[in-house]
Amino acid sequence: MENPSNYERVDCISTEDGKMNESGFIHLQGGREGGRRTLWLVRSVLDAQAVQHHLSTGQPTLVQENDRFSQWHCEPSLEVTQICPATDADVTKYTTGSSIFQRETADLYAAVTEPYIASLPPVAWVANIINGTAEADRVVGRTDDWLLSVDTKWDGVGRSQLYLCGLAVDSSLRSIRDLRGVHLPQLRALRTEVLRVAKERYNLPANEVLTFFHYQPTFYWLHVHVIATTTPRRGSGFDAWRAILLDDVIDNLTRDAEYYSHASFTYALDTQSGLAKAFAAHVNNDS
Amino acid sequence: MENPSNYERVDCISTEDGKMNESGFIHLQGGREGGRRTLWLVRSVLDAQAVQHHLSTGQPTLVQENDRFSQWHCEPSLEVTQICPATDADVTKYTTGSSIFQRETADLYAAVTEPYIASLPPVAWVANIINGTAEADRVVGRTDDWLLSVDTKWDGVGRSQLYLCGLAVDSSLRSIRDLRGVHLPQLRALRTEVLRVAKERYNLPANEVLTFFHYQPTFYWLHVHVIATTTPRRGSGFDAWRAILLDDVIDNLTRDAEYYSHASFTYALDTQSGLAKAFAAHVNNDS
Repeated sequence: MENPSNYERVDCISTEDGKMNESGFIHLQGGREGGRRTLWLVRSVLDAQAVQHHLSTGQPTLVQENDRFSQWHCEPSLEVTQICPATDADVTKYTTGSSIFQRETADLYAAVTEPYIASLPPVAWVANIINGTAEADRVVGRTDDWLLSVDTKWDGVGRSQLYLCGLAVDSSLRSIRDLRGVHLPQLRALRTEVLRVAKERYNLPANEVLTFFHYQPTFYWLHVHVIATTTPRRGSGFDAWRAILLDDVIDNLTRDAEYYSHASFTYALDTQSGLAKAFAAHVNNDS
Repeated sequence: MENPSNYERVDCISTEDGKMNESGFIHLQGGREGGRRTLWLVRSVLDAQAVQHHLSTGQPTLVQENDRFSQWHCEPSLEVTQICPATDADVTKYTTGSSIFQRETADLYAAVTEPYIASLPPVAWVANIINGTAEADRVVGRTDDWLLSVDTKWDGVGRSQLYLCGLAVDSSLRSIRDLRGVHLPQLRALRTEVLRVAKERYNLPANEVLTFFHYQPTFYWLHVHVIATTTPRRGSGFDAWRAILLDDVIDNLTRDAEYYSHASFTYALDTQSGLAKAFAAHVNNDS
């Protein structure tokens, strides 16, 4: 059996820009037996021993530092963020068992989530983008009601990692809970503009592009995420208990203009988050 | 700035069984400056150069082989499946640009997906589990209408990677498209049994367990996936364009007994798959 380390050259790698995340395919050319080979590569589970091996052999190099936080690159493929010294709060926050699946009914939204959102400070940085005083150079599309910009998660170059962000102009829309049938025209216009930009600017056909909301989002100014079939999965943003497709939102509102005033959502909630504490306080008040 | 490779011991790793996938947190104790440190580790993008580094320094060891296929482990954390020699078909199949987002309306289901499903051979291996002639030792729960078993993706031990599979007894149920209001009692009983098994057998409370279907599934015998908040994400199984939560299915059928006869779904579809070819043939027939 030909050993995979025995080859002449890497012939092609199965992504447009030669990069892949957690898993992927590459093709090799040559080796003792000659001919082509296809490899499917999967990062295996990291355990404490593998981490020690990585840290001791990978020669971490400092990328940047800021107070207690520093970023390191560890060869061949590990990015390390270090908090040093770590407080008790750090250790608690980053230790297992720190999230739950929350089922949020309309009643729970009214009793817990909506007051929590109302208590947060305004999202000033989005207002700066909307009124054109920041990041104007990143805007790649717009409708009467939405701005479409290159997300900071993407360098704007290799389209296989495409990531755009759409921001609603109307600051009274905080999440999909605020959407009603009256918003259907602007949501359909947004969909049209996303597909136009994807096609004209990035040469991506409609069936290789997907637009979705997050619920819960990380900030409460209504926004959408736009990705390609080839965009790598990172973090929890693509999970079914977080991402809500624009096409589904449009279908649901078409069927029932009040859909999002009575729908239930399930999402993963960090037990140390402000929203989790609001839910915990609500349960204690009820009992 | 303390180098992350300089430490005395790994104090704790932020998963119950010391294992983590794509990213995670660990805590280190000691080092030149002493004290604790928290590290956030993320696998960085693999490019051709990183793959070559891995293969040449990781000393791949053969795990198993079968005809053209072989599995290798490459230190410290890469699993490699090799196809050697690779055919033109292999190279095409595993090269970029091979999936699309398919929006399946009820009409498209009737015209394309349903006939495709009907053309497939019966799922014999599930029948063997249902009638008790195979894998009986993996069954951990049951209702009148469902069997609940330990999924092959999980070793059944470290509950932080919990993965159960529920199989419908009724072989006429092929996917969630076949579910109607009449199935609500069995879906609610399934939910109750999942939560009972999670609590009694694995000591997991209801808000740390989630049950979902896949659409499209990999085989057409109705089944559910059961995970914990801590179960690592692997592959595409948790994506919003694949996973459909049991709680949402129950809500939708409660509101509308015929919901899944008219709903639309978006899913990622490999362009080389049988279903993608059926869609392509349908488009050609229409034009």
